[in-house]
Amino acid sequence: MRLLDSLALDIDRVADAPLHRQLYRRLVEEITAGSLRPGEKLPSTRDFAGLLGVSRNTVLLAFDHLISEGYLQPMTGSGTYVARDLPEQLPAKAPARINPAIEAAGHLSRSLAPDTAITHAPSTLRHMRRPVPFRANFPAVDMFPVRQWASLAANLYRELDPGAAGELLGEGDPQGYEPLRIAIAEHVALSRGLSCTPHNIVIFAGAQHAVDLACRILLTPGERVWCEDPGYDGIYASATAAGALPVAVPVDEEGIVVEDGIAQAPDARLAYVSPSKQFPLGMELSLERRHALLQWANAAGAWVLEDDYDTEFRYAGRPMPALHALDREGRVLYFGTFSKMLFPGLRLGFAVLPDALVEAFVSARAIVGRYSPMLEQALVARFMEDGHLATHVRRMRRLYAQRQDYLLRAIEQRLSRWMMAAPTNTGMEIIARLARGLSGRAVAEAAAQRGLEILPIAALAREAKVDHLITLGFSAFGEEQMDEGIGILRDIFVTMEGRGPQ
Amino acid sequence: MRLLDSLALDIDRVADAPLHRQLYRRLVEEITAGSLRPGEKLPSTRDFAGLLGVSRNTVLLAFDHLISEGYLQPMTGSGTYVARDLPEQLPAKAPARINPAIEAAGHLSRSLAPDTAITHAPSTLRHMRRPVPFRANFPAVDMFPVRQWASLAANLYRELDPGAAGELLGEGDPQGYEPLRIAIAEHVALSRGLSCTPHNIVIFAGAQHAVDLACRILLTPGERVWCEDPGYDGIYASATAAGALPVAVPVDEEGIVVEDGIAQAPDARLAYVSPSKQFPLGMELSLERRHALLQWANAAGAWVLEDDYDTEFRYAGRPMPALHALDREGRVLYFGTFSKMLFPGLRLGFAVLPDALVEAFVSARAIVGRYSPMLEQALVARFMEDGHLATHVRRMRRLYAQRQDYLLRAIEQRLSRWMMAAPTNTGMEIIARLARGLSGRAVAEAAAQRGLEILPIAALAREAKVDHLITLGFSAFGEEQMDEGIGILRDIFVTMEGRGPQ
Repeated sequence: MRLLDSLALDIDRVADAPLHRQLYRRLVEEITAGSLRPGEKLPSTRDFAGLLGVSRNTVLLAFDHLISEGYLQPMTGSGTYVARDLPEQLPAKAPARINPAIEAAGHLSRSLAPDTAITHAPSTLRHMRRPVPFRANFPAVDMFPVRQWASLAANLYRELDPGAAGELLGEGDPQGYEPLRIAIAEHVALSRGLSCTPHNIVIFAGAQHAVDLACRILLTPGERVWCEDPGYDGIYASATAAGALPVAVPVDEEGIVVEDGIAQAPDARLAYVSPSKQFPLGMELSLERRHALLQWANAAGAWVLEDDYDTEFRYAGRPMPALHALDREGRVLYFGTFSKMLFPGLRLGFAVLPDALVEAFVSARAIVGRYSPMLEQALVARFMEDGHLATHVRRMRRLYAQRQDYLLRAIEQRLSRWMMAAPTNTGMEIIARLARGLSGRAVAEAAAQRGLEILPIAALAREAKVDHLITLGFSAFGEEQMDEGIGILRDIFVTMEGRGPQ
Repeated sequence: MRLLDSLALDIDRVADAPLHRQLYRRLVEEITAGSLRPGEKLPSTRDFAGLLGVSRNTVLLAFDHLISEGYLQPMTGSGTYVARDLPEQLPAKAPARINPAIEAAGHLSRSLAPDTAITHAPSTLRHMRRPVPFRANFPAVDMFPVRQWASLAANLYRELDPGAAGELLGEGDPQGYEPLRIAIAEHVALSRGLSCTPHNIVIFAGAQHAVDLACRILLTPGERVWCEDPGYDGIYASATAAGALPVAVPVDEEGIVVEDGIAQAPDARLAYVSPSKQFPLGMELSLERRHALLQWANAAGAWVLEDDYDTEFRYAGRPMPALHALDREGRVLYFGTFSKMLFPGLRLGFAVLPDALVEAFVSARAIVGRYSPMLEQALVARFMEDGHLATHVRRMRRLYAQRQDYLLRAIEQRLSRWMMAAPTNTGMEIIARLARGLSGRAVAEAAAQRGLEILPIAALAREAKVDHLITLGFSAFGEEQMDEGIGILRDIFVTMEGRGPQ
C-alpha cells in the first residue's frame, strides 16, 4: 500500500482545507497522474480510513465528491473503482497565457473602460472590509439584530421545505417580490410622504444599480445630465458610461443651484439631486428650489432622479416630504436603499417610478440581471412586516444621535484649533471646516497613512472649491474608537502645524 | 372613547395584515386626519389592549413603530403622546398623476427602450413562479436540500453574531467574496478543465448579468457580434442595448458555423457561443470548429464569450473540456451560473476572465451595482467547501437521467405519431422534431392555453428555419406531472390533426 502511505503523509491536520478536501485533491492527482489506474479497485472506506488514520466520514465525503465528478465508480456490493471513462483529459499543467500583443484596454468600449471607471470610481472600490473611523455613510453593522434576522430566515427556510420551494427558489419577478414592494410602498408613504402603489416600485441590487440602469434607459449618448458639485460620484460614472455628458452644477446652502443648471444646460435630459440631504454637504433643498427644479423639468421634458439615501436617521427638526411628493407630472424617479437602514452587504434598493417608466425599467431590469435574489427579498419583506425595520431604525437613530454628540464634543474639546463642525439634522456624518491653510486632501492622506478613513469633500468635487471641508462619519464607531481617531487626527494636525502652512 | 371603539371595529382578525400593522395604520390615519391631535395623551398600552381586545404586545409593536416614525412621543414615567412635531405634512390624498403630453417612450434611450427589450426579452419575463411541464432549463428546485442550506445559514449567522459582522454585513469586494472565488476556481478546474486562479474570477448576479456587462465593456456602438441562430436571446438583447449589431450565425450539427460568421462579419468584436451544449439545440461544438473559432478570434482581435450553462448534468459520454482550456491567447471569457446547479432564485453566476480584462470588469462591476450580496456568497462558498454542491449535482444527475428516460419512453409510446425525440447527453431538456405539417409555434401556443409551457425553437431563431423543433424540459417534473402533460399534448395533436395541416 505504497499509495496509502504517501497519502497518509500528505494529509495535513493543521492545514486550512478540511481533511476530506485534501484527500479528494490528492486522489485526483493520483488518478490524473496515472498512479491509480482506470478500473483499479480502492480499499473499502473503512479500511481506507483506518490506514490513513482519519474518520470514515472524511473518506466518504472525498469518495462522494470523486464519484460525482466521475473519477470513481461505485459498484453495488463490490466496492469502489477508479472510473474507466475518466471525466476528461485535464491539461497536465496550467498553460502560460501570455500574449504581449494584446493591449486589452485599446479594444474596450470607451464607456466603461478602466480609465473612465477609475476616475469616477464609486467609493466602494476604495474601502472594503471593516469600517475604520471616520468612514462616512456607513451604518453600525455590529448593532444589527442578527439573531432576529437569523430566526426569520430559519422560519422562511422551514416553510420552504416541502413544496413551496418553487416560489422563492425558482425564477423571480424582474420587478421585485410583490410582498416586498407592498411593504416598501407603505414605508415610503408613511415616512416620506410618497404616494405610490406597489406597481410603481422596482427592486434593484442597491441604489447605484438603479442609478446606472436609469442612465442607460433615460439617456441617449451626447445628452447632458445635471450632477451636483460636489456630489455623488456614482452618477458621474454611470452618466459617462451611458455616453451622456455630466454637467457639474454647484450647490449652495439651499442645495443645487437650479438657475445655474438652466444657464449651463437648459436642455439636459436628466437632473440628479439629493434633496433631503445633499451628498456630501448635507443641506436640504429649499422649497423654492424644489419648485424651480420641477418647473424646469416639466418645461424641458427632463427627468429628475431623487436619491434619498439616509433620511431615516433624523435627529432634529421636521423633514420636508420627498421631492417626489411635489411632482404632479410624473417627472421624478425616487430611489431608496436598504444599505443604511439594514446593512450594505444586503444589496437591495428600490425605485419609485412614474407610471410611464415602469414597463421600461422592468424590461430592462430583466436584461441586465433578471431580478434580485428571492429569499433575500422575502426576508426583508418579513422584517418590515413584523415591524423590525422600524424598531431597528429607531434604535440606531438614538445611538447615532449619541455618537454624533460625542464626536462633536470631542472635536470641540480636542480639535477646535484646527476644525469646526456643526451638527447634522439627519444622516451618519458631519461636515467639518478646517482652519485656514489646512487642505482636506492632505489631511485625508495623512489620516490614511495612520489607518483612518477621512473623506475630503474635494474628492467629490469638479469645479467647487471645497478643499477646506472634510466628512467625518460617526455612526459606525464607539466612543473608544472615536477617541483614538481624534487622538490620531490631533497628532496629524500638530505635525502639520510644525511644518507650517502648505 | 369613541376613537377606541372605532379602532376596535376596524381591526380585522382574519385580514392578511398582522393586527399590529392594522392598528398602526389606523392610528396613522387618525393622526393625519386630526382625530388624534398633536400633544394628546394616549391610553396606556395595557388599557389600550384591554379596550381593543388584543394582546398588549400588539399594541406595543404598533406604538413602537409609530414612535420610530415620529408620530408618537414617549415621555418617561408619564405615558405616550401624539407628537407635537408631526413627521411631515402628508399629502391628504394621492395627487392625480396625469400628463397626457408626456409620451415617455419618445424620451427614452433607444438602447434599452421597451420595444427593443420586449422583442428580445429574455425568457424570464415570460415565465415566472412555479414551473409547469415542459419548461426547459429549470432545475428540480423542490429537491434542493433546503435543510442543509438552512443549517449552513444558521451557522453563518451564529458566527456573525458578536463582532465579525463587518465582514459580511458591510461593504463587499466588487470582484466577489474571495473564498467563493477560490471554491469556483477549484470547481471549474476539476469539472471543466479550466486553468485559472481566483484572481481571474468575478462574481455576478447570474450569467445574464455577466453577459450584459461584457457587452457594455467589450463593445463600442456599431461593432458587430456573432450570435448563434437559433440562440440565446439574452445576448441579442444585451448586444443591442450596448449599441452593437448582432449578426445571426447559423449552427449545424457541429455547432456554430465559423466560416459563415467569417463570411458575414470577419471584423466582429465578439462571438457568443455555447460550445458545451448549444442553446437551444444541444449539440457540442466540434473540435475542428473550436480551433477555427479561436484562430479567427486571435487573428481578428475578437473576444469569445463561452456560456457554459448546464454541463454539470451529464448522462453519457465524455465531455470535451471547456473551450477556455484551448485558449492560449487570453481571448475567451468563460461564464458559468449557479442557477442550474443550485436554484435560479439565488442569482449568482461567475466569469473566468483573461488577465487583461479582470481590472476592467471589476471596476465596471462596482459601477453597475457594486457587488453581490455577501451573506449569500459566503453561504455558497461553504456549500461548495463542504462538498454539498457535488453531492447535490450528483443526486440531480441521477434523477434527471431517470426523468429523461421516462419522458422519452412516454413520447415514444404516446406521441410517436406526431413527434420524435432523441436523448440528450447533457442538460435538462430534449429537442423533439415534429411530424411534417406541424408548427412548433402553433403547438406551443395551443399548449400555453392548456397550461403547459413549451419552448418552440423558432422563438429563438432569426433566419434559421426551425419551426419543426420544440424543446421539452424534463428536469423539474415528476412522472405524474409529465404523464399529465403528455396527455394534454396528445389531445392537442389529435385536435390539430382533425383540423388538417396548417
